[in-house]
Amino acid sequence: MPAERLNNCSIARTLDRVGEKWTFLVLREAFNGVRRFDEIRANTGMPRQVLTDRLATLVDDGLLRREPYREPGQRQRHQYRLTRKGFDLYPVLVAMLDWGDRYLAVDTGPPLTLTHRGCGEPVHTALRCEAGHLLDSARDVTPVPGPGALRTA
Amino acid sequence: MPAERLNNCSIARTLDRVGEKWTFLVLREAFNGVRRFDEIRANTGMPRQVLTDRLATLVDDGLLRREPYREPGQRQRHQYRLTRKGFDLYPVLVAMLDWGDRYLAVDTGPPLTLTHRGCGEPVHTALRCEAGHLLDSARDVTPVPGPGALRTA
Repeated sequence: MPAERLNNCSIARTLDRVGEKWTFLVLREAFNGVRRFDEIRANTGMPRQVLTDRLATLVDDGLLRREPYREPGQRQRHQYRLTRKGFDLYPVLVAMLDWGDRYLAVDTGPPLTLTHRGCGEPVHTALRCEAGHLLDSARDVTPVPGPGALRTA
Repeated sequence: MPAERLNNCSIARTLDRVGEKWTFLVLREAFNGVRRFDEIRANTGMPRQVLTDRLATLVDDGLLRREPYREPGQRQRHQYRLTRKGFDLYPVLVAMLDWGDRYLAVDTGPPLTLTHRGCGEPVHTALRCEAGHLLDSARDVTPVPGPGALRTA
């Protein structure tokens, strides 16, 4: 792969937006329905300023939206909800969860299982082509240059 | 989610191993069959010392293995190949590619398309349950505490 192609790599571009551990943990909380600053901070152990920065970046990038709320007798605060763009990162998190469960889980087993709402069976990521075939492995994938491929010099 | 559960989150554990932009870019190169230090460096633009560090960590963590090779007339060098554990991160990268193609691609379209070796159609990640159902959305997923879930205090 020529060096020039780096600038048009969708993986590199994705990592520029979300390629940071704390960012993913904020997204994990959002997928778990945790929307409030203090709860996110308690669940992740993030330093306050880091969380403030990450939330601002996620809002700026259109992955989270900021909504006001007010508890009775308290000042107005904000909560953070996934946008469609943020929501569509779900397969990335599920793929990480699958891999972590397989290779890094503690002896007691995974702490969380994702199940299909319809039938209750565990959910994982799969590779599937647009003709509907499920792929057994990355070895069944052939990368081909797409329309945005840059020419080599 | 109680704070104590953080320590047993498979996403957090995965991010501890691979949650860094350069690490993912080294893995991207490995999946593209790029195995040699100078080529990885040229393709990613990584500083030499950062690449040295990331490769060492990936080898220590069992994601890459280091193999000697020798070109005619040159000293012995090493190349880096994915282990099974590293190879199994493929769905994470494909999920990032899907998302980046959708939300961050340049006007010219994606630079790379993953196609099914069998039929030539584009490949993406999907969510699928163990009963074989394909899920339309994260909204079809219900998270349930697994065997390793820590109790709240």
